[in-house]
Amino acid sequence: MPDQVLDDISHRRFNPLTGAWLLVSPHRTKRPWQGQQEAPSKNVLPEYDPKCYLCPGNQRAQGDSNPQYDNTFAFVNDYSAVKEQQQEYKPEAAKDDVASLLLQAQPVTGRCYVLTFSPKHDITLADMTAAEILPVIQTWTRIYGSHLAPSHPLKAQAEKALASIPANPDGEVDPPKDQLRYMQIFENKGAAMGCSNPHPHCQVWTTSALPEEPGKELAQMTKYRTENGRHLLQDYAKLEADKGERVVWQNAGFLVVCPWWAVWPFEVLVIAKRHVRALVDLTDEERLQFAEAVQEVTRRYDNLFETNFPYSSGIHQAPLDCTEEEAETSWFHMHFYPPLLRSATVRKFLVGYELLAEPQRDITPEQAAARLRDCGGQLYRKLLK
Amino acid sequence: MPDQVLDDISHRRFNPLTGAWLLVSPHRTKRPWQGQQEAPSKNVLPEYDPKCYLCPGNQRAQGDSNPQYDNTFAFVNDYSAVKEQQQEYKPEAAKDDVASLLLQAQPVTGRCYVLTFSPKHDITLADMTAAEILPVIQTWTRIYGSHLAPSHPLKAQAEKALASIPANPDGEVDPPKDQLRYMQIFENKGAAMGCSNPHPHCQVWTTSALPEEPGKELAQMTKYRTENGRHLLQDYAKLEADKGERVVWQNAGFLVVCPWWAVWPFEVLVIAKRHVRALVDLTDEERLQFAEAVQEVTRRYDNLFETNFPYSSGIHQAPLDCTEEEAETSWFHMHFYPPLLRSATVRKFLVGYELLAEPQRDITPEQAAARLRDCGGQLYRKLLK
Ligand SMILES: [Zn+2]
Ligand SMILES: [Zn+2]
Repeated sequence: MPDQVLDDISHRRFNPLTGAWLLVSPHRTKRPWQGQQEAPSKNVLPEYDPKCYLCPGNQRAQGDSNPQYDNTFAFVNDYSAVKEQQQEYKPEAAKDDVASLLLQAQPVTGRCYVLTFSPKHDITLADMTAAEILPVIQTWTRIYGSHLAPSHPLKAQAEKALASIPANPDGEVDPPKDQLRYMQIFENKGAAMGCSNPHPHCQVWTTSALPEEPGKELAQMTKYRTENGRHLLQDYAKLEADKGERVVWQNAGFLVVCPWWAVWPFEVLVIAKRHVRALVDLTDEERLQFAEAVQEVTRRYDNLFETNFPYSSGIHQAPLDCTEEEAETSWFHMHFYPPLLRSATVRKFLVGYELLAEPQRDITPEQAAARLRDCGGQLYRKLLK
Repeated sequence: MPDQVLDDISHRRFNPLTGAWLLVSPHRTKRPWQGQQEAPSKNVLPEYDPKCYLCPGNQRAQGDSNPQYDNTFAFVNDYSAVKEQQQEYKPEAAKDDVASLLLQAQPVTGRCYVLTFSPKHDITLADMTAAEILPVIQTWTRIYGSHLAPSHPLKAQAEKALASIPANPDGEVDPPKDQLRYMQIFENKGAAMGCSNPHPHCQVWTTSALPEEPGKELAQMTKYRTENGRHLLQDYAKLEADKGERVVWQNAGFLVVCPWWAVWPFEVLVIAKRHVRALVDLTDEERLQFAEAVQEVTRRYDNLFETNFPYSSGIHQAPLDCTEEEAETSWFHMHFYPPLLRSATVRKFLVGYELLAEPQRDITPEQAAARLRDCGGQLYRKLLK
């Protein structure tokens, strides 16, 4: 394999999804390291925490009480980053003065939800079976489907999906009156990711604007499709499945890889193998396959350093309000960005050169994938005590 | 002021230097906060640490010993992210197959330096006077100037600058044989920024490639200049000096602002007021003015939460090897990216929505600038005990 030289030399790799380069320094993994060896971390949390604002029956900051929910529970964030109603803003300046060029602002409205994964305070996706994760995928699908624009190209798909998923009143949220542009589902897990509440949950931010990252991806995927007549992630999933060296795991519906352009040490991309444009395109069978993929990633993460592995993860899919062309170009995938590098306490910082110049990594994605392939056994915590 | 509505509503702001938007949620600063009140942190470090690999006279990992230096000391990083010599890499694939589109790599060579700011282990830029910081600016200038390409448009400027700066053999480094493209000077300060050694120092990474961030800025500045016939940062500095609300401090040569598009809570941009293309363009007087600006920023940072304020900072200027056009378009400036939000221990995390969608902030740059304007007094540590 002629690319083997990349195991030894400094090089840049290109991320075709964002159009940006990163610096890879594989020789630095050879520097001396007083590796900390920590004992495997155990679960010391209670199954119910009376002070947790996400546990069933508890009261939240603004006075509302949580129901005694069975699997998932969704509610509007008491301190949302965006609001549905606010004062109007129209920039005063004319189009051609310096202020209108250099002090550009645009108003954003929207709504933010919090969504729990389980009534149990002390578990994580890694502790749950695929069957237990399935209600999470179902709730994501219902929330996404119910927020689609009336004229959305996937509207019929959404109605079909919603009809096939068992109702869960605790996981339902009515969409706001004004149609929004994008829904970002994401999870912050662990104190290292700024998350102070261990109760398993994610956030769902819906906004009137298409955010930067999915916007960049959509532009790059559109460009690739125009130039090559195929889908970028379709080509990429096929290529990686053939090469094998960056594949962590796969089933019939999904491929899990450490992408060629990974920035975080154990960054992972979950890619739909067929053209799934959004959650509502998934069949019953595929929702379970996706739950399996999420289970495999999170369990392997925990097994890697025998710790509750922190990460940020999130789903990219078709916007809530979009053209036929945008929907067709979208390709369902999920990113996992975990900071740990060598142990439960040794993390990578994206600082200095990363902020001022460009992202840099030492361990290669091929090395990371090999490590993650090798830790697929039972969740380490279940073998303790 | 009609923009005042932006103090209350969610909006996006545009960063013309990178071409990217960020989300601002000022109403969230009103959410309840059990503000930690920590005691002002004192300096508990020794002036000399026998175990520090940067202190004068000490031995480094690979056996070299540091000289008994007087102000700055520069050496090649024992574990550089890039190397001068390595195996060749030529991608095998033809230009039109999928692998050559989606698995793109390019080799990078270069050299990384470490540069100390002082022989004293226990001080920071905030503790140093502008006159004490001046040798740091001078060393940066000499290193940058000595690494310029022979045909560089600033070569004559560099020779003039180097002739006017007193020699400091401990701060000298000979450039590598092969001409490099870009020099990134940056400092990581504090454990929050992944820096484990408190000895005041920065890093200087030189590479054969132009990294992403300065590359994006150069492209955006070129576009602005083509469209408007003026320099982006010239217009911006003038505009901010007129408006005043985001200005932290200024002298004859430099403007310090919390930029309109700041991502980090107390992010600061130091902009040259006249057209300075790189360090070697600075006059003797301007080098001292720049040292003053760096002093003002770092002292105000420490005063803000009465702590040793962590940050990553770095200089953007003309590439080491560039066209006349690229040199002319460059505009000398320095970024400070600090993570602290509310106290010495409450920081902002760039995770979740920031990684998956787009950067988000609560406190506005105008509020941040007002806070920083107000803490310009003597360094808090000097008033303790
Ligand atoms: Zn709980
Ligand atoms: Zn030291």
